[in-house]
Amino acid sequence: MDCPGKLRELAEGMRDAGIDLVLLFDRDNVRYFTGFRLNRASSSILAVDRDGKPTYIVAQLDFERAKRECWIEDIIPFPEDTPNYLSVLEALLRGRVERIGVEKRCLTLVQAEYVRELFGNGVELVDVGGLVAELRAVKSEKELERIRHAAGIASRVMGEVLREARPGVTEAELVGLAEYLLRREGAEGSSFEPFLMSGEEAAWPRRVASGKPLREGELALLDMGAVYEGYCSDITRTFAVGEADRERKRIFAVARKAQEAALAAIRPGIRAAEVDRVAREVIEAEGLGKYFPHLTGHGVGVSIHEAPILDRGVDTVLSPGMVVTVEPGVYVPGVGAARVEDMVVVTRTGCEILTDAPRDLV
Amino acid sequence: MDCPGKLRELAEGMRDAGIDLVLLFDRDNVRYFTGFRLNRASSSILAVDRDGKPTYIVAQLDFERAKRECWIEDIIPFPEDTPNYLSVLEALLRGRVERIGVEKRCLTLVQAEYVRELFGNGVELVDVGGLVAELRAVKSEKELERIRHAAGIASRVMGEVLREARPGVTEAELVGLAEYLLRREGAEGSSFEPFLMSGEEAAWPRRVASGKPLREGELALLDMGAVYEGYCSDITRTFAVGEADRERKRIFAVARKAQEAALAAIRPGIRAAEVDRVAREVIEAEGLGKYFPHLTGHGVGVSIHEAPILDRGVDTVLSPGMVVTVEPGVYVPGVGAARVEDMVVVTRTGCEILTDAPRDLV
Repeated sequence: MDCPGKLRELAEGMRDAGIDLVLLFDRDNVRYFTGFRLNRASSSILAVDRDGKPTYIVAQLDFERAKRECWIEDIIPFPEDTPNYLSVLEALLRGRVERIGVEKRCLTLVQAEYVRELFGNGVELVDVGGLVAELRAVKSEKELERIRHAAGIASRVMGEVLREARPGVTEAELVGLAEYLLRREGAEGSSFEPFLMSGEEAAWPRRVASGKPLREGELALLDMGAVYEGYCSDITRTFAVGEADRERKRIFAVARKAQEAALAAIRPGIRAAEVDRVAREVIEAEGLGKYFPHLTGHGVGVSIHEAPILDRGVDTVLSPGMVVTVEPGVYVPGVGAARVEDMVVVTRTGCEILTDAPRDLV
Repeated sequence: MDCPGKLRELAEGMRDAGIDLVLLFDRDNVRYFTGFRLNRASSSILAVDRDGKPTYIVAQLDFERAKRECWIEDIIPFPEDTPNYLSVLEALLRGRVERIGVEKRCLTLVQAEYVRELFGNGVELVDVGGLVAELRAVKSEKELERIRHAAGIASRVMGEVLREARPGVTEAELVGLAEYLLRREGAEGSSFEPFLMSGEEAAWPRRVASGKPLREGELALLDMGAVYEGYCSDITRTFAVGEADRERKRIFAVARKAQEAALAAIRPGIRAAEVDRVAREVIEAEGLGKYFPHLTGHGVGVSIHEAPILDRGVDTVLSPGMVVTVEPGVYVPGVGAARVEDMVVVTRTGCEILTDAPRDLV
C-alpha cells in the first residue's frame, strides 16, 4: 500500500493547510495507511504528525496482534473501559497542537468532545476528509495488483452464481452462494453485502436481497464484490430468468449501450460529470431518462465507494491510476431493472476494464 | 416492533428531558422505529416531535419503496445532490425548536453543522442515545418472536457448518458456508461478518477469519448470527479439529464452566457487573484470569451489540424481556482460544436460553 510514501504526501498537504496533527477515525482511511485488518466492532485511531510520522492507537484486545502484523512502529493500546480513549495521546502531543485535521463526515460529537477535552477548547478542527480522499483516488501499482485480484475473484464468482440462477431459487440464497464462493476463491470477504433484485419490484431499487424466488421471464440483477488484502471490487450483471420479452430485452440493451458509451468516454483529462452525461444522454435519447435515478459510477479502493464519483456536477478530472465503476441503470415500473457494471482503471490513453464476466443478457 | 407504542415512550422521555424534537441518524435506531430495511450505503433520518409523531426522511432512491413498505405516514424524500439534506425538514419544524435530541455517539460534525444551519446556532443538542438504548433494551413479545427465530436459524446453521470442519478447510471457507446457510434457512443476512479463529494465533483474538487452513489438534471457534426481520442473533461454539490434547480440553472446560455459572446467575434484579463477576471468578479460580480479556456479554436486538452490556462497572439491573449473550472466553498464548456463547432472555424467575446447538467440545 506504499504507506510511508502516502504518509509523506499527507504531511505535505498538512503543511499547505497549516495543520499540526491529523487524527483519522474513519476505518477505511485507517486501514489504507496501516494495512491492518480489524473486526468491524473494533475501533482504532491513526495519528499523523507534521513530519508524516504515524502513531497507531488500537484497542487493548487488538494490541498484541497489531504489534505483530502492522508496519507502524509506534502502536499504543487504549484500555477499553476508559471513557476518553484518546487520553493515551496526551503525553505525546499536548501543548504543541493548534489545528487538528479530522474527517468531519466521520468524527462524531462524542469523539470531537474527547479531542477538545484533550487539546483544549481553543483547538481548531479542520476537515482533511477531502485531502485524504484525493490521495486515495490515484492508485499505485501495488494497489492496482490487489484491485485486479479482487476484480478477478468477483468476475469468476459472478459466472458461477449465475449458473445456479433458475426459477424458484430465492434472491437471498444466491447472495449467500456469492458470499461462500467469494471466500472459496480467496477473498477475505465481501466488499459490501451482495444484493440480487428480481422482477418488477426491482424498478424501486431496494439494493437488498429478499426471500423472493426468481420467476420465469423476469429480469434479475446481481451486484457484488470481493475484498482482497484490503482492496475492493464491484461488479453487476443482469440476467433473464428463462426468456425475457421484447420490452425487457430493450431496457437491458439501453443500459448496456449507455455503459459502452461511458466506457468509451473515459480517458485522462475528462471531467467526471462528462462521463455521467455521456451515459445519461444515451438513456435519454431512448426516452428512458427519468428511469435512471442514480450516479453513473464511483471510485473503488479500500472503500467500496470513494472518490472520484461520476455524477452530475462533479468537476473532478480523471487521471491515470484512478479506478472507477461504470454502471448506468434503467428501472422501469411494471417491467424491471437492468444494469451492467464494470470496474476500470484510467490509463494514459483511455481505460482498461478490470472485471470480465460475460455482459450479454443470459 | 410495536413502533407507535415505543414512540409514545420516547415522547415521554423527551418531555422529561425538555426536548422539542428528536433526530435519529443511527441506522439501527431508525430501523427499530420504522421497521424499514435499507441498503448500508443508504442513509435516512427519523424525526420525532413532542407528541411522538414521526417524520421519516429517506433518499429519493428509496422513497417509492418506503411509501409502500413503511408504516409511517409522513415520509419525505431528500434529493441526493443537496448538500444539506436536512433542509427538507425546514417547512415542518423551524422556529419552534430549542432543544434537539440527537445520538452524540453517532452524529457527525457535518451532520451537526447541518442541524445548526437549519435550526440556528442557538439550538442545543442533547444526547438521547442512552434514552433510546434503554427503551430498546427490554423486548416486547413481537420482538422476542423475531429474535427466537433468528436464534433458531443460527443454531441450526452452527450445527451444519461444524459438520464440514476438518483439517485443510480454511477459516474463510467455513465463514462463507455460514453466510450461505444462514440465507438458505431464511435469514435476511448475517448479524455481523462471521468469524472463525483457529489454532494458537486465536489467543490474540483477531475476530476476523483468514485464509488459514484448520489443522489437526487445534481448537477453533466460530462466532456468527442471523438477522430475521431486522432482529439479530449471536452464537459461538468451540470445536476441536480432530482430537484436542489435555491442555486444550482444560481451557475449553474452564470457559464452559464460567458460562454455566453466569447463566445460572442471570435473573431479574441482578446487576450486569455481578453476572460478569461470576464468570470472571470461575476463570480466576483456575488461574486463567488474565486470559479473559473481554466482557462477559452484551444485549442483542436490532443491533448485534446493544444495552445492556455485562461487564465490570456496569450498574444496569437486569429485568424481564432483556436479551443478552453470555460468552466468557479463555485465550492462552501457545494453546489457543475457547469460548461458548449463548443468547438468553431474562424471564420472571431466571433466564431462558434461545440458542441451542450442542455445547460440548466436538
